[in-house]
Amino acid sequence: MQTLPAFKDVLEAAERIRASVHRTPVLTSRTLNAMTGAEIFFKAENFQRVGAFKARGACNAILALTETEAARGVATHSSGNHAQAVAYAAGLRGIPAIVVMPEDAPAVKVAAVRAYGARIVWAGTQALDREQRLEAVLAETGAVFIHPSNNFHVIAGQGTAALELLEEVPTLDMVMTPVGGGGLLAGTALAAAGRAPQVRVIAAEPEAVDDAARSFHEGVLYPPTNAPTVADGLRTFLGDLTFPLIRRHVSEIVTVSEAGIIATMRLIWERMKLVIEPSAAVPVAALFEHPALFRERRVGIILSGGNADLDHLPWRAGA
Amino acid sequence: MQTLPAFKDVLEAAERIRASVHRTPVLTSRTLNAMTGAEIFFKAENFQRVGAFKARGACNAILALTETEAARGVATHSSGNHAQAVAYAAGLRGIPAIVVMPEDAPAVKVAAVRAYGARIVWAGTQALDREQRLEAVLAETGAVFIHPSNNFHVIAGQGTAALELLEEVPTLDMVMTPVGGGGLLAGTALAAAGRAPQVRVIAAEPEAVDDAARSFHEGVLYPPTNAPTVADGLRTFLGDLTFPLIRRHVSEIVTVSEAGIIATMRLIWERMKLVIEPSAAVPVAALFEHPALFRERRVGIILSGGNADLDHLPWRAGA
Repeated sequence: MQTLPAFKDVLEAAERIRASVHRTPVLTSRTLNAMTGAEIFFKAENFQRVGAFKARGACNAILALTETEAARGVATHSSGNHAQAVAYAAGLRGIPAIVVMPEDAPAVKVAAVRAYGARIVWAGTQALDREQRLEAVLAETGAVFIHPSNNFHVIAGQGTAALELLEEVPTLDMVMTPVGGGGLLAGTALAAAGRAPQVRVIAAEPEAVDDAARSFHEGVLYPPTNAPTVADGLRTFLGDLTFPLIRRHVSEIVTVSEAGIIATMRLIWERMKLVIEPSAAVPVAALFEHPALFRERRVGIILSGGNADLDHLPWRAGA
Repeated sequence: MQTLPAFKDVLEAAERIRASVHRTPVLTSRTLNAMTGAEIFFKAENFQRVGAFKARGACNAILALTETEAARGVATHSSGNHAQAVAYAAGLRGIPAIVVMPEDAPAVKVAAVRAYGARIVWAGTQALDREQRLEAVLAETGAVFIHPSNNFHVIAGQGTAALELLEEVPTLDMVMTPVGGGGLLAGTALAAAGRAPQVRVIAAEPEAVDDAARSFHEGVLYPPTNAPTVADGLRTFLGDLTFPLIRRHVSEIVTVSEAGIIATMRLIWERMKLVIEPSAAVPVAALFEHPALFRERRVGIILSGGNADLDHLPWRAGA
């Protein structure tokens, strides 16, 4: 049994990463408030370094390495934001990073990882391909594996977004995040439990990949469903660190439809003028699809990231 | 000869519209700074009410009406942001507004104007059709015409964006805006001349519709070129108020290519996660196309608006 991070680890993370990440703004929208009947406070992590909250966890994990560990370099597998986050954080620390990426990764993400100075190792297009390739890389190089979600310091680092939000708006009724691997959700739950235990923590998940919701409600860790979803950043699954933290501290996990995610993403682009990625729209979509839970509540939402594919907008593909 | 607005009118406008518009944030981007060699301060008017700086001028003009004038209602012609701005401001004042719009106006803009409670009168697709239709409306109703740019209070109102920017970042070397009808540019020039006369005011215009640049350089008011440009909000022309103010207070008007506007718009979406419309990218594109003017300068830029057509992105049409 691994040691679970606690609230003090979120506080330590906040100190450790302060100079390496942005303190992102908290935004509001009269339009969204009027449409949902809630009072929403958006923590704009789409403005974060590398365009997503993932910079927080990766910085915390990599800055927390001992000198001996750091000398080995770091490695991870990711097709998305965690790849850029690890590359960015390793660059800050001045250590080598290897990122195993799928052969079909978008060129813009590949370019970003390279620009931060990381080495890319190619694997097939399936998650299993990447995991096997990563095993070989770790065996060969001795690099330290920075898991995208199920990692002590990654979870603590992701909790710093909610910590800042609760400092700025202490009187929230609830804080919401999307859930995939559960790093952001577990970290948020730690931050809320420690800083504002009266604040409920609620997550939202695409109903197409509802393994976290089912695991949460049934107390059994379900495997990923691997179904397609527009919120492809959430096609990951809970682990032995994130799951117990979520079971202990989270109030509810609700699911939302693909159509709801796409319509909400478009609404935020159109009315708030924010570029967000589909995963970031997931908790906001929950306010439309489960209105009774949120009406007349003060709801903090972590807008998780803004790395949308500008060449393939979902409302065009779906039209 | 009409009376030109002065700096004190910008200060009065700021007081008059304070409760009716947002004080928008000033944003920075290390990426854009690194790419341009300048230090850029973006005044994010895409976050303004109705999604563009136009709310400032329309609110100032409509809130400045006497009771007698206000009782007649207001009218304007616009296919774009000014239509929404007049509808919004008239709604605040509680007076009727009539907006003459082209038959091919985007449904989302028509819906927005209606949602603010304005009445729409349809005209053909040409500017001349709208002007003639508006003449008839004014004759019939006695409504007060709120011109989109060549209006004393509209110019003073638009100047409040630069006033806020110069308050927040007093040490700029220059302030930039796009130029179409010249209301934003003339107001910005008044604000800079009054608040920070050492700050140069520079405008950018699509080279496809370079009538403002030619008028400025030659001292003769050229008619509009009516050529197509992706920055369709700038297909308007200077008037007898905006032109003399711009001649007096503006340092330079440069032109930029269509490809440069599109690439810069995409860059800002991708790297700054801001939805901006093509017109807002025009001054930023100038930093890439005229680098010698801006390198190592502290450049304030009014990001004029965010009402982009999410169904027709220019980099798809152009691909």
